[in-house]
Amino acid sequence: MLALSARELGLDVTVIDPNPDAPAKVAARHVTAEYLSPEAVAALRTVDVVTYEFENVPEEATRKLAEHVPVHPSPSALAVAQDRLREKTTFQALGIDTPRFVQVDTAADALRAFGEIGPLVLKTRRFGYDGKGQAVVRSAAEAARAFETIGSAPAIAEELLTFDREVSALVCRAADGQLAAYPVTHNVHRQGMLAISEAPAEIPDEMATRALAAARTLAEHFSYVGVLALELFCVGDRLLANEFAPRVHNSGHWTLEGAKTSQFENHLRAVCGLPLGSAELLLPSVMVNLIGKVPSAAELLSLPDVHLHDYGKAPRAGRKVGHVTARAPTSEEARRLAAEIERIVQEAAGAA
Amino acid sequence: MLALSARELGLDVTVIDPNPDAPAKVAARHVTAEYLSPEAVAALRTVDVVTYEFENVPEEATRKLAEHVPVHPSPSALAVAQDRLREKTTFQALGIDTPRFVQVDTAADALRAFGEIGPLVLKTRRFGYDGKGQAVVRSAAEAARAFETIGSAPAIAEELLTFDREVSALVCRAADGQLAAYPVTHNVHRQGMLAISEAPAEIPDEMATRALAAARTLAEHFSYVGVLALELFCVGDRLLANEFAPRVHNSGHWTLEGAKTSQFENHLRAVCGLPLGSAELLLPSVMVNLIGKVPSAAELLSLPDVHLHDYGKAPRAGRKVGHVTARAPTSEEARRLAAEIERIVQEAAGAA
Repeated sequence: MLALSARELGLDVTVIDPNPDAPAKVAARHVTAEYLSPEAVAALRTVDVVTYEFENVPEEATRKLAEHVPVHPSPSALAVAQDRLREKTTFQALGIDTPRFVQVDTAADALRAFGEIGPLVLKTRRFGYDGKGQAVVRSAAEAARAFETIGSAPAIAEELLTFDREVSALVCRAADGQLAAYPVTHNVHRQGMLAISEAPAEIPDEMATRALAAARTLAEHFSYVGVLALELFCVGDRLLANEFAPRVHNSGHWTLEGAKTSQFENHLRAVCGLPLGSAELLLPSVMVNLIGKVPSAAELLSLPDVHLHDYGKAPRAGRKVGHVTARAPTSEEARRLAAEIERIVQEAAGAA
Repeated sequence: MLALSARELGLDVTVIDPNPDAPAKVAARHVTAEYLSPEAVAALRTVDVVTYEFENVPEEATRKLAEHVPVHPSPSALAVAQDRLREKTTFQALGIDTPRFVQVDTAADALRAFGEIGPLVLKTRRFGYDGKGQAVVRSAAEAARAFETIGSAPAIAEELLTFDREVSALVCRAADGQLAAYPVTHNVHRQGMLAISEAPAEIPDEMATRALAAARTLAEHFSYVGVLALELFCVGDRLLANEFAPRVHNSGHWTLEGAKTSQFENHLRAVCGLPLGSAELLLPSVMVNLIGKVPSAAELLSLPDVHLHDYGKAPRAGRKVGHVTARAPTSEEARRLAAEIERIVQEAAGAA
């Protein structure tokens, strides 16, 4: 989606992706190479600016490149995002509330953490996503086994929260400090994966303002350039930061139709030093992820103001293969459309 | 733009274009071949459906293909659109008003036409576009020379109109007769080329309804599938049909941001047998063509809710190399933005 958006802005894009079927290759020059390979570095040394849309790109690769060419967002933001402990510690240092957390390096640490904070989620510090590398600990007896379950890797224990909802605060910051803040988005996860995003989130304005202020603080801290997504839990009137993504984010896909400027266009504008576009809402919007396979386009598109984004990926259980956005005059109507879309998606999954 | 839109719908696109630098190749498989070549026919015989977005594609090529694979819009609509005399005669037969016109095959015919309808525009029947192949006749003395100017080719003489404005009625028709009608668009031409399109056109509702009814009549006549653009002159409260384009149209480029479903997406939905999307206006919009070269993106994008579409073409005087769309809460504000954009475009042209 970044590559398609770049085309409209007249930008030439070179994509490094070890996958020979990189989806971006439909709209970009694709170099099939590992991120740290000499070919990758050679291909990127001649470009004007480098960005990434996958947070497990090796930080080392971005640092090496940054010696030759501007890299946005900065490798330092990427480094923090790649380590859940540094991430939470950074939130804390910036005055952004988080769930209680404890560093866990051994099974004994895991047990001690349970004593300290009670029921908890154990998460590997690195390379976790979509619920992978996580284990819940509800009793002292589970602590050691949970540490094994996640591979006995350096970890973080976080208090097990009962939250009202998850939201994300998406901001785009330009090098000169200009900030475009999208309406706070309500995210619904199923089986550890993002299923639905709804904008604007139905939370009090004051809470939305706080969520965006936290995202802004984080962006300022890193002198960040590009889109940053901060995920937060709402617990009563408290907002607790969970994690941030130093890139365009799945919870911002609705902006393609729902905001005046999409997250993709704004990210590109920021990294290319162009003025940012408005992040204002056009109409209440919902985004439904298509996981596993794309259902019948005919059925989806029979719904009003519904737009399909098929990533052209081969079907596979658990794989995000596309998304659908619906806009409507009211949030209620948008939510009703989301339910319809989910029904179509589930029927397709059942039939598969 | 069709190819980019097709990507989102998960469609695989093969493009035939004799130009090795075909802009569509960024998002499609490109076969560099003449439209009538055996390679072109071979490449297209395996696809599900064929469409075109250039009305000077040989009608013969579309007819040959239609023996093997559905071609939308139909070759018969293309044939009429390619001949100004058949086009006007078809309008007349369907009860769609036109300027007065006379067939001209010789210099003597041109003189006779002047006697009959007074001041006129002589236009070649075929292959005219952007004001090319046309000559104005304001006196009997000019008639013969005008016929030479246009290459002594079979022509049509049309009364020279003083019109209030030019508008286009854009509709998208599905095979089952479903119709999506876009708000009527006001077009401003400069040096014979479309410079600005503004939607909705500031004409009485009743006139807009008549314009769309004419476009619908035409679409029904051809059992048309896809987007059709009918250009009309407004003279007082009269609407006189000038010509139609059997394809997505420059005067509909604003729909990418300004309508609930773009003309590109709707054209693809129609030719692929998918349900049509809403053609409703999102916000008042203006489109400004970028002719010759793309001006500074930084300057353009500093304006609110302005979106750049750079076609990635090499700069050349008189070539459309991109367009810019601006949305605004009111038509007045959109028009003010268009004036700003034109100023930036003209300064860039002056500096070139």
